[in-house]
Amino acid sequence: MSAASAGLTHEVVSIDERGRPSTLHIPAERPLTVYVDKRELVTLMTLGGAPEALTLGYLRNQRLVRALDDIVSVQVDWSVDAVAVVTRNGIADVEARTAKKVVTTGCGQGSVFGGLMDEVETITLPPDARLAQSVVYRIVDTIRTQQSVYKQAGSVHGCALFSNSGELLYFVEDVGRHNAVDAIAGLMWLDGVAGADKVFYTTGRLTSEMVIKGAQMGIPFLLSRSGTTQMGHMVAGKVGMSLLARCSGTHFLLLAGAERLVFEPGLLEPLNAPRRVPVA
Amino acid sequence: MSAASAGLTHEVVSIDERGRPSTLHIPAERPLTVYVDKRELVTLMTLGGAPEALTLGYLRNQRLVRALDDIVSVQVDWSVDAVAVVTRNGIADVEARTAKKVVTTGCGQGSVFGGLMDEVETITLPPDARLAQSVVYRIVDTIRTQQSVYKQAGSVHGCALFSNSGELLYFVEDVGRHNAVDAIAGLMWLDGVAGADKVFYTTGRLTSEMVIKGAQMGIPFLLSRSGTTQMGHMVAGKVGMSLLARCSGTHFLLLAGAERLVFEPGLLEPLNAPRRVPVA
Repeated sequence: MSAASAGLTHEVVSIDERGRPSTLHIPAERPLTVYVDKRELVTLMTLGGAPEALTLGYLRNQRLVRALDDIVSVQVDWSVDAVAVVTRNGIADVEARTAKKVVTTGCGQGSVFGGLMDEVETITLPPDARLAQSVVYRIVDTIRTQQSVYKQAGSVHGCALFSNSGELLYFVEDVGRHNAVDAIAGLMWLDGVAGADKVFYTTGRLTSEMVIKGAQMGIPFLLSRSGTTQMGHMVAGKVGMSLLARCSGTHFLLLAGAERLVFEPGLLEPLNAPRRVPVA
Repeated sequence: MSAASAGLTHEVVSIDERGRPSTLHIPAERPLTVYVDKRELVTLMTLGGAPEALTLGYLRNQRLVRALDDIVSVQVDWSVDAVAVVTRNGIADVEARTAKKVVTTGCGQGSVFGGLMDEVETITLPPDARLAQSVVYRIVDTIRTQQSVYKQAGSVHGCALFSNSGELLYFVEDVGRHNAVDAIAGLMWLDGVAGADKVFYTTGRLTSEMVIKGAQMGIPFLLSRSGTTQMGHMVAGKVGMSLLARCSGTHFLLLAGAERLVFEPGLLEPLNAPRRVPVA
């Protein structure tokens, strides 16, 4: 496997409303064309921070490759914006399996090849998994203080995987939040990490595709700074996923799987506590 | 053509960090499978507010149909989550033209079928178009005060088309910002509206795909509340598009095509004006 992380930000000159020029950092965005056994599969537009993990996670989440053992090598070559994947036995029925396009819409038009919703019907996430309220706050605070392309350049989404005690395991940013989640799926595959006792955090919205991908990875907890959609909510109910939206500071909205959250009321100030008046 | 706008929001119960239940509105998200001449083309995940315009704009922006005259009918049937498009002469080479997938990443993994970047090379937007600073502010204020699903339920993106004097022509929201821009392309087609003297506004980021779609519609001005990416910036430079990012209040950052903006310094308070101290 190559290790071909590319430059993540780029400087441009901007002019503000008073005509004043300044230098601005913007995130990189580059095409990465995936070739599997010399056959062109797809072009992903990506930040370029974790191209090998992205490629693996894309193949995993699209259910094109079932096991890491089926992959012999992953070589990224930015000089031609391409990644070459060699598999042990090829992808069976690749024509048929990539023919049905579902253009999902986290906020771009994502592309999940057909049949994923069928698979969702077979998933049940562990009902006895639990998450403590204090761990939710530890996660939110870890993300808040994390060094990131977002802080430098904005315009990217971040995804992260945490242990059940709130330890940060992976943090990936990309111009597309679906790429970020795919890259984490790739890292979990490479490291043999299971999802059942993990917590997934995303800065993006909890649309159907995000919930489906979380379910595919077997993760019972999905946290977001943002909100959800009707279908994300519906799929979460179907697979038994706990959805926590609008996570910010000590606030969150539990939208599904509420029984898994262990409330710790002592963490919050009483509602009738006197307000601290800021000193001028 | 049908007129099958569906319910745009949905009520769910949420539980907050203190265990208190409340009712929350979330945006709808539903599949819409596009059949062209009885052949399944793609499934779009959408809010459902403007499905006919979305379908037309999708076919237009993917360059699958070249002229509105080529389309005989567009019938949406939500009972089967499908839209049936009948064309006059079919789509030539539909197999080949939908085989090459570019999974773009506004923030989902968008799907622009192959060859769009090639087409971009042939586009030049009108160099003599101008936009007054006061019109930028009128547009930002119009969006701020617009009734919207976003205000009620969050988690959607909005796109709008404005005249060069700041008059709102179309406003479309969707769970995917690429759907919202496609729907506006569909409305422009239906009404025979050209882009050369128009201004496009989006709440979403100015990634390569958004800039490409704006260029395809022939619109020289692209405004966003959000930022841009390296490739969005690069494509804007190539086609001669004026990009205004981070539009909020009186602030904006002009990132490309600066010569088209007509600054009106009198609109802004002088920088050394005494600050108004709020009365306690």
